[in-house]
Amino acid sequence: MAQVQTAIPKGTRDFSPIEMARRNYIFDTIKSVFKTFGYAEIQTPAMENLNTLLGKYGEEGDKLLFRILNSGDAFAKVDFDKPLQAQVTEKGLRYDLTVPFARFVVQHREEISLPFKRFQIQPVYRADRPQKGRYREFYQCDIDVVGSKSLLYELEMIQVASKIFEKLDLNVAIKVNNRKVLSGMAEIAGQSDKVVDITVAIDKIDKIGLEAVQTEMRSKGLTEDAIATISPILTLSGSNAEKLSKMKALFEGASHSGIRSEEGLKGVAELEELFALVEASGVKTLVELDLSLARGLNYYTGAIFEIKALDYQIGSISGGGRYDNLTGIFGLKDVSGVGISFGADRIYDCLLGLDKFPATIQQGSTLLFANMGSEEAKYVVKIAAALRERGVSCEIYPENSKLKKQFDYADAKAIPFISISGSSEKENGTINIKNLATGSQETFSATDIESIISFLK
Amino acid sequence: MAQVQTAIPKGTRDFSPIEMARRNYIFDTIKSVFKTFGYAEIQTPAMENLNTLLGKYGEEGDKLLFRILNSGDAFAKVDFDKPLQAQVTEKGLRYDLTVPFARFVVQHREEISLPFKRFQIQPVYRADRPQKGRYREFYQCDIDVVGSKSLLYELEMIQVASKIFEKLDLNVAIKVNNRKVLSGMAEIAGQSDKVVDITVAIDKIDKIGLEAVQTEMRSKGLTEDAIATISPILTLSGSNAEKLSKMKALFEGASHSGIRSEEGLKGVAELEELFALVEASGVKTLVELDLSLARGLNYYTGAIFEIKALDYQIGSISGGGRYDNLTGIFGLKDVSGVGISFGADRIYDCLLGLDKFPATIQQGSTLLFANMGSEEAKYVVKIAAALRERGVSCEIYPENSKLKKQFDYADAKAIPFISISGSSEKENGTINIKNLATGSQETFSATDIESIISFLK
Repeated sequence: MAQVQTAIPKGTRDFSPIEMARRNYIFDTIKSVFKTFGYAEIQTPAMENLNTLLGKYGEEGDKLLFRILNSGDAFAKVDFDKPLQAQVTEKGLRYDLTVPFARFVVQHREEISLPFKRFQIQPVYRADRPQKGRYREFYQCDIDVVGSKSLLYELEMIQVASKIFEKLDLNVAIKVNNRKVLSGMAEIAGQSDKVVDITVAIDKIDKIGLEAVQTEMRSKGLTEDAIATISPILTLSGSNAEKLSKMKALFEGASHSGIRSEEGLKGVAELEELFALVEASGVKTLVELDLSLARGLNYYTGAIFEIKALDYQIGSISGGGRYDNLTGIFGLKDVSGVGISFGADRIYDCLLGLDKFPATIQQGSTLLFANMGSEEAKYVVKIAAALRERGVSCEIYPENSKLKKQFDYADAKAIPFISISGSSEKENGTINIKNLATGSQETFSATDIESIISFLK
Repeated sequence: MAQVQTAIPKGTRDFSPIEMARRNYIFDTIKSVFKTFGYAEIQTPAMENLNTLLGKYGEEGDKLLFRILNSGDAFAKVDFDKPLQAQVTEKGLRYDLTVPFARFVVQHREEISLPFKRFQIQPVYRADRPQKGRYREFYQCDIDVVGSKSLLYELEMIQVASKIFEKLDLNVAIKVNNRKVLSGMAEIAGQSDKVVDITVAIDKIDKIGLEAVQTEMRSKGLTEDAIATISPILTLSGSNAEKLSKMKALFEGASHSGIRSEEGLKGVAELEELFALVEASGVKTLVELDLSLARGLNYYTGAIFEIKALDYQIGSISGGGRYDNLTGIFGLKDVSGVGISFGADRIYDCLLGLDKFPATIQQGSTLLFANMGSEEAKYVVKIAAALRERGVSCEIYPENSKLKKQFDYADAKAIPFISISGSSEKENGTINIKNLATGSQETFSATDIESIISFLK
């Protein structure tokens, strides 16, 4: 064989039939849940104009955008004295689904009616350094609703997540926080300008512990008084209600600083209402207040969500929150939204690691008709058509090869049933079918499709 | 509102909820048929290395590849005395699904077992001049089987296409030809070196007529004898069997030239066997021999397919054929394949133009619970959860707004049922539901999910 050049770009993947069958199981489960909550699908182009993407993900994000060279002769009119990149690229591949969604809402604001509930499942692209579990092309599965501040939508995010992981049989905890509570902490600490530093520091509490977080806050210029005010909050214990009640007291003035925070109290009130809704709706999953939850994301303005698998070491498998200013980046103010994103790859790894993919996931045919010759093939081709009409996946082996080879094919493709129907079956108008797992074998009238289907179950 | 910049790149599209619902109807139909024939899904990355893509689509195709600027500082080490494009781009977006599939087969040849039956539904990218019906990002829906020369797979392509368009309720003709027959024509014309010119000319017969095709053949240097030999073939009439019988006679030596063509006879024999299989399988769609069918594609080596909508002016909506050398471009010889590709956009336009999308295609919820206050919302939230458990899509209006506004929302989202359940329903443990189309209204016990579901049908 000649030298072959068949590598794919690093950080990208081919998906084989079994991988696709498993991925579709995840996507289909997620979609079916999204739909029962009335979310409608949209899609946006893989390419967006760079002015849509640039400046939305921070300086680091801008560097991770895949840029597309202008078509035609991109270099025909460039000024070589100026930076070339901006002159030869106008488009980039989408980096996430959130910014394209905001662009979509603004662009189509006359066509959509608010609140607008959409889901979107498409690949995104990041020129990140590839490593285990981090890819340059990967799917995001997002739902968002924009145009309402109702906490009923925070509830929907929790219900959706709960139902998806229940259907996938994954044991998870849904962690909830509220950005207003975080702002309230900064306020009672007397350092409202440090809310970003505080949330970034707090985000690390699980990884580095309280002491290191305190050191980090110190290094960011927080006073000892501020740290003394905040620290007790980070290690609060008890039920959700108990924690909220303690927070409420602190925001009312009972903290080290004695400062009152209306913002913090609003956050506590939202969380109390949300937990009441969760209780009323009968959500089965553990929903946990986690005051250390900040997700390092600066655009959340209300609820913050994060979902962790309890039986598998993988970090967060889903996250989201409330944002009041998303479409503002495209000039459309006052459209509040809340959303949550599911990471298909991490969910895949969990299900595979825990052996939770259903055994019934199928890549190919249920039944292989062995090829016993060209006339016999013409006989079974019609029976196969009748079975497909009833939804049975089946196929006919292409050549009249040795039976061993035909059985090997069924084996390699994990086809569970084989029919070896030759000239005598053709003469009698019958077919016989063998269950390859159990070895049991039966003969059926070729027109008795019902009995054949029963045998194939 | 500030100036908004929300355009998408020309030639690309957003898909709204109703467009996605219709597109999914097409994709789901196509997929379900692919699966009943035992085809398994694969996916390949949007980006391929340029050495995988370049040179596979001709010079014109190379120009239409979207190239991705190398990440990091692409211009850091370029030699400005040499052409820049090749120095700053290593990856491109896939141009079709066929070349990535060939690359996949070669790359994974140790993991797959032949014959390998796969389908693939993904977007492809072409830097073509955008125009009506031609996009820079569009989906292809392909099935191919590689690793067997059995005509049973040609039959499968025809069966798959027939079943898909039957399910979509589109009236089509499946046109079939064979590349060996085209080669045979060139052979009996005494100009085997002109087979490409002849097939390109023949491809135009529908558009420009026999005389113009003859002129074109003359301009390509075909002799008058050659043209005299070929012309009667192009206007053959009669049934498939009659045409094949006449072709057989010509290839046996009865033509103007008197030359015998073994290749042509082989093509006729393949077509005869294929039509016999089509007949045996009970395919309902019109399958027509069309000797003018060449599809201008040089890599087909056997059967050639094209499908035309009969009730809608749109050109071909599907096409494919047998190729013996596809994986040869990546160094893996002797892997014959046959495939067919369905154009989702053209099928969409046909279905829309003929008003053939089912009225039941749904974008969102079946039932809207009006919001009658926060306590009432807590009451219905649990009923909504129970209905979703049974697969009913439903949602709760987010705020206790005026009923007019809530009805308008249901109207805008085409939600067919509304429940206005307030404090008295809460007290009685009931809900009432109104069918917005008929105006009929009923009250149900909140626990009588069966009756509610019946009413929603």
